[in-house]
Amino acid sequence: MPRATHIILQKYEALKQSIKDDALSERTTDCIIEAFREARLYLQGYAVLPLVYDGQGKEYFAFQNTQNGKISRAVNRSLFLSFDNTVADVFLQNVKAREITNQTSEEITKACYTIAISFCCSIDMLKDNDQKTPGTFFEYFIGHLMAVQLNVLPSNQLDVLNMDMRATLPTDFIFDLGENRPKFHVPVKTSTRERVVQVWAHQRVLDGVYGAGRFLGLLSCLSETKVNHQNNVVTEICLPDQWRVYQLFIAQMKRIYYLDVPQKYDNLNRVFPPIHVKPFGDFFFEAEVLSN
Amino acid sequence: MPRATHIILQKYEALKQSIKDDALSERTTDCIIEAFREARLYLQGYAVLPLVYDGQGKEYFAFQNTQNGKISRAVNRSLFLSFDNTVADVFLQNVKAREITNQTSEEITKACYTIAISFCCSIDMLKDNDQKTPGTFFEYFIGHLMAVQLNVLPSNQLDVLNMDMRATLPTDFIFDLGENRPKFHVPVKTSTRERVVQVWAHQRVLDGVYGAGRFLGLLSCLSETKVNHQNNVVTEICLPDQWRVYQLFIAQMKRIYYLDVPQKYDNLNRVFPPIHVKPFGDFFFEAEVLSN
Repeated sequence: MPRATHIILQKYEALKQSIKDDALSERTTDCIIEAFREARLYLQGYAVLPLVYDGQGKEYFAFQNTQNGKISRAVNRSLFLSFDNTVADVFLQNVKAREITNQTSEEITKACYTIAISFCCSIDMLKDNDQKTPGTFFEYFIGHLMAVQLNVLPSNQLDVLNMDMRATLPTDFIFDLGENRPKFHVPVKTSTRERVVQVWAHQRVLDGVYGAGRFLGLLSCLSETKVNHQNNVVTEICLPDQWRVYQLFIAQMKRIYYLDVPQKYDNLNRVFPPIHVKPFGDFFFEAEVLSN
Repeated sequence: MPRATHIILQKYEALKQSIKDDALSERTTDCIIEAFREARLYLQGYAVLPLVYDGQGKEYFAFQNTQNGKISRAVNRSLFLSFDNTVADVFLQNVKAREITNQTSEEITKACYTIAISFCCSIDMLKDNDQKTPGTFFEYFIGHLMAVQLNVLPSNQLDVLNMDMRATLPTDFIFDLGENRPKFHVPVKTSTRERVVQVWAHQRVLDGVYGAGRFLGLLSCLSETKVNHQNNVVTEICLPDQWRVYQLFIAQMKRIYYLDVPQKYDNLNRVFPPIHVKPFGDFFFEAEVLSN
């Protein structure tokens, strides 16, 4: 297998370099466009295997290599744009033109879902047990989109200055919008699972060092699906009660964005006090007013 | 390879069952005695490969299969009791007799280190990339010793009750010493790395739900060594500045115990405010006065 040199991985490496050079550049958008095009082409060579969702109101499938039975992660049928649909291509042109909000939140969410899941599924099929490449692609993809929307370059760490002590807190993305405006603390995860407490803990450190309300925490995720390979059942792994405990006792995240919002986390919008869990497309319409 | 049925794994399964039946029982100590005996016997069949420590004042080696070159994790030479030394056997008899403090803190630390690292190295040699079995053994071993010393059965989760809301926080070990005495929150890790923030975050939740000072956090670890397999160099992976940030801004851990105290964490005893990092053997002599 031509793993190291597959064109999708070449495009991924180009994206990594471009993000490093200038995360705000059109060149970075072009790298995403090219990676998405190659991923789409690649996935058309695979069969589609319907999966069984163990909740209600969603349908999932996986890409399947019919020769060896290997399958990709789960894909949400209603969010995944078919191969002849151009909404994702229009979206990426809008990103280049800095006009993302020309589409609706729903279109943006579907476009982003399709782009992210296409790349992730391609890597699932291309490689064995590689979680790092999809995770890094997703981080760069979300980071680029937010940078374009906010017109601010993100940083990946923060000085934690304190009298006689100086330390650095590594974070996913920090967007500093300048004086008298919020700063965004943006952890990005393809899925959260048991490591998610780190997100609230880092928010707590930011609140403690800089004062409450200065950093708005916007956790951004792809989905929480897990496929049981024995019976092809898709489950959404969610810990809503633990999230409530973290939100009450560690720190307050301002938003949790998902491309594929899990049902149990969507319910957190309706408990009190609520945790605001929203489709990712909403970000582009509320970014300016989140500090209100 | 007779993996599933190797006698060390049989002893490990027996320990798991005995912990489940009664974590305080003499039978549980016997299971540890037997697992340790088998691990020692097994390791005597391997060569000893000196490693290069990239700090000062410590020497490490690894067990090596000279046929295929496979090596175990790093073993601290000054803490590892030689195969004919009986200090660890005396220790385990003291555990059975509930007389752990008949030995010095230093002897206890060496005995515990030798028992834990022998089991971990055996699994390193027996299996490929199995972190779960050593981690679970270590958790049960530490949990049993603390249970014996405190004469209290630990629990693994805690109700987080709050008005109209009920949730459960999964923890490593919680020892409830009863009214007007401290409760111990004991996370157990063979090594901490990037997931350690969970420890402080859980402590923060306990402080928030039950009030500060009611739960004393005692993080208990084996070591922080990492072996570079290219050049056989041992490094201690430590993030002391991040620990200080967590201790200042998330919650206060009362003690960090190590069987093999990393140099950079030992230095945290001498910053202000200090983080108290101690050899594990000290626990048995200060458990009663930790709440003072």
